[in-house]
Amino acid sequence: MKKRIIVDMDGVMSDLYHQLIALEKRDSGKELNVADLIGLTELEAFPNCKTHVHEPGFFRTARLMEGSYEAIKYLNEKYELYVVSAGMEFPNSLREKYDWLAEHFPFITWEQIVLCGSKKIISGDIMIDDYPKNLNHFQGEKFIFTQPHNQLLENEEYKRVNSWAEIMNIL
Amino acid sequence: MKKRIIVDMDGVMSDLYHQLIALEKRDSGKELNVADLIGLTELEAFPNCKTHVHEPGFFRTARLMEGSYEAIKYLNEKYELYVVSAGMEFPNSLREKYDWLAEHFPFITWEQIVLCGSKKIISGDIMIDDYPKNLNHFQGEKFIFTQPHNQLLENEEYKRVNSWAEIMNIL
Repeated sequence: MKKRIIVDMDGVMSDLYHQLIALEKRDSGKELNVADLIGLTELEAFPNCKTHVHEPGFFRTARLMEGSYEAIKYLNEKYELYVVSAGMEFPNSLREKYDWLAEHFPFITWEQIVLCGSKKIISGDIMIDDYPKNLNHFQGEKFIFTQPHNQLLENEEYKRVNSWAEIMNIL
Repeated sequence: MKKRIIVDMDGVMSDLYHQLIALEKRDSGKELNVADLIGLTELEAFPNCKTHVHEPGFFRTARLMEGSYEAIKYLNEKYELYVVSAGMEFPNSLREKYDWLAEHFPFITWEQIVLCGSKKIISGDIMIDDYPKNLNHFQGEKFIFTQPHNQLLENEEYKRVNSWAEIMNIL
């Protein structure tokens, strides 16, 4: 039987830092550098992010995280894969996330998609996520996907992965 | 620690038979009786249901299942409650289900809502659902909520409950 793998969307499959940096530039003219955001929470890095995430199209037009298409395609064949995204905080995002997946990952079926609030009730063998709060309750193997907000965190409970290329070498 | 209870929406919290019967009457003039639909699948009972469930407003305007408000309020205090609905097959339903819950069950927070495809990855202690396919993979205690399509099914793996009043007496 295939192992079940749970993959997060925001900041893992989709590149939300790129999106937030572009909106900051549009609104304030400020050019932020990812290197300067390391160790800051998303709210510290992007004081306007709570407005931006509610903008129509925010999730729909996000670009792919580098290497995610190839890696998800590979994992989808090797594992029982589910995409689990905490979209419920932003109800506008629900349909956008569904449409984004349909466009960029057409091989993922509707049965494999979960939009939730808390991820506490999700069970599986492997989880890839950029937020410790999502990994903490998980019973299986935990991978934290490096994003600036988590880059300085150290925790022996989960393994750090810095790119999709690295994940494909491990899994 | 509170036990975790997983509650289905369609045919459990919301009365979709009432909705489908009304649409059948609107479109064909036929007056269907619930008593005549016992033992039929939803597709056998409502040949046009695949069109009707895609109609804007279908999920948004569904009426509450009798007694569901009081029972969910009670369960929400006694248990760690999650509403888990297989909305992903009908992407229009995602926002409608969110809005329906916000209107009828305002005490349920976004953290407690899950819209998914398959329910295989959901873990908890108790599940209430009207479809055996959702209960079958669940590891905890299983309650099948009586609806005409499941009324003739017998399976010792799950307990049958015929109303929310009955559930409040048991749980």
